[in-house]
Amino acid sequence: MTISGRPFQDFRDLVHSMPDAADEAVAAVRARNAQLTKPPGALGRLEEIVEWLAAWQAKDEPTIERPTVVVFAGNHGVTAQGVSAYPREVTKQMVANFSNGGAAVNQICATFGAGLKVFEMALEIPTKDITQDAAMTEAECAATMAFGMEAIHGADLLCLGEMGIGNTTPAAAVYAALYGGKAADWVGRGTGVDDDGLKRKIDAVERALALHRDHLDDPFEIMRRVGGREIAAIAGAILAARIERTPVVLDGYVVGAAAAILHAIDPTTTDHCMAGHVSAEGAHGDVLRRLGKQPLLDLGMRLGEGSGAALSIGIIQAALACWKGMATFESAGVSDKG
Amino acid sequence: MTISGRPFQDFRDLVHSMPDAADEAVAAVRARNAQLTKPPGALGRLEEIVEWLAAWQAKDEPTIERPTVVVFAGNHGVTAQGVSAYPREVTKQMVANFSNGGAAVNQICATFGAGLKVFEMALEIPTKDITQDAAMTEAECAATMAFGMEAIHGADLLCLGEMGIGNTTPAAAVYAALYGGKAADWVGRGTGVDDDGLKRKIDAVERALALHRDHLDDPFEIMRRVGGREIAAIAGAILAARIERTPVVLDGYVVGAAAAILHAIDPTTTDHCMAGHVSAEGAHGDVLRRLGKQPLLDLGMRLGEGSGAALSIGIIQAALACWKGMATFESAGVSDKG
Repeated sequence: MTISGRPFQDFRDLVHSMPDAADEAVAAVRARNAQLTKPPGALGRLEEIVEWLAAWQAKDEPTIERPTVVVFAGNHGVTAQGVSAYPREVTKQMVANFSNGGAAVNQICATFGAGLKVFEMALEIPTKDITQDAAMTEAECAATMAFGMEAIHGADLLCLGEMGIGNTTPAAAVYAALYGGKAADWVGRGTGVDDDGLKRKIDAVERALALHRDHLDDPFEIMRRVGGREIAAIAGAILAARIERTPVVLDGYVVGAAAAILHAIDPTTTDHCMAGHVSAEGAHGDVLRRLGKQPLLDLGMRLGEGSGAALSIGIIQAALACWKGMATFESAGVSDKG
Repeated sequence: MTISGRPFQDFRDLVHSMPDAADEAVAAVRARNAQLTKPPGALGRLEEIVEWLAAWQAKDEPTIERPTVVVFAGNHGVTAQGVSAYPREVTKQMVANFSNGGAAVNQICATFGAGLKVFEMALEIPTKDITQDAAMTEAECAATMAFGMEAIHGADLLCLGEMGIGNTTPAAAVYAALYGGKAADWVGRGTGVDDDGLKRKIDAVERALALHRDHLDDPFEIMRRVGGREIAAIAGAILAARIERTPVVLDGYVVGAAAAILHAIDPTTTDHCMAGHVSAEGAHGDVLRRLGKQPLLDLGMRLGEGSGAALSIGIIQAALACWKGMATFESAGVSDKG
């Protein structure tokens, strides 16, 4: 994407020209589903999943041939405020761990045959400390969104994840700015800060919101001022996936902040996104309710890395396998309802 | 298992001599888990799953080499009361569908590389109609439990499922007999009966409980009088799995009745069982709370066939893959908490 002199306006225009669900593909999926050897609706959300694949792939016969987990890694100036239990250099160390196949998300991807792509974004130059300054300039934020847009090509099912020591603090700031309420309502313990660390996180979010309070009526401004590079890149990736007709599985608390920004600009922008899981972090369950998303999994996870989204790939694969592979009442000679 | 002249007493004796959890294996799993490159507890229930595998396999390094779904199929005299939306011959037709690879559970097993074994039990001779008679004699019920015990050999992770037109009615009767309350509290729509069918199900359960009311203080008596062959076979399978140190994943509403019978005899008897999912059928969520089981999945499924349990295999495989494959802080050169 070419960024003009009014970078956020380019994305605003883009948001309002997104492709719609492919109703005919959904109808085709439903017609076959009604013939399969099971009572109507008995596979519950597995049936909904196949309709969702059809709607956003615009395929009468959805595919999962290239399921891909894309992880964006960023560093955050706000770690200077003592908001994380881990030192900032862990972001880079974990990127190396991803490359070497040693992280949780590597094992989950291998379990389900999914690809993994990790993009690190200027880890040596953290975003500015949101309690002191805007995290990014408009140009930098828009360029990061454009970077995210370029990162997702080739997948037919896309899971979005992130890594970034300190990044649950910007995510909490985004939620507080979008949805109001007290900072403490949105802040969780992240990687596991103690009570003092939790107080520092809440305090940092409060100070960031106070500093930027005159600029929080626009979601993109919220993203660049109190967000971070992962969040901007993921927002771009969500938009690009919609354009490329790739269904998106959202990971947890930090990825949700990117979806929340887009949803605040136009609620239809995240219609192609499924919530892979509900995180144990902060108020993620509340965020998902605001986004109108019911998570596929609720397993108390709070790791990031795209791990919760990746874990749901197996469910989605099984859903599609049922729809594709099951016999019909007619082909199997099974009596239908009396 | 050789059945004596007092068949239920043999099983009562067996229940009280079950092996315990292997605490040392759990400790070994926990020790490695603490070193993995993630914040403590960040994988949520995935960490608990690996401990559960270790506890009941009694292995310091748990395995999932032979995940197996075992489905028991039975027919039910109570279908004469018009309690199902489908005719009784569908049980046999679905067994053929399993053999031909055309059912939902076949696709789910294939997705996760799990084996599938289907056992049909005298489908031409349904159990007696529970509104008129006891479903089974004590000898027949005990022999069916023994049959279930023999069916599970070789698995290192066992998912239990069932097929049987009409079998949510006996399951509801078991729950009402064990837990009290009104029949309507326990009865759901099964494969999808209409309002009249639902009334007939509730009426059938009420009449069965009235007929057998003087014999409902013993769980095994409940099972033989108002249960069915699938339920008895699954109860046997659960016991055999405990003895053979095979962790068990329970499927939904009907499988839960077998677990509830054993749990009522001795609550520790089902400690090696994980709830694969919570069914949309009847009061399965309430049953799981009584059994002390938090389901891995909640996807609105109500198919039976072991489908919900089978679907959770992917979660369990991913959990073990993380524990086995992740790098440690030391091996990956990742800084631990500051």
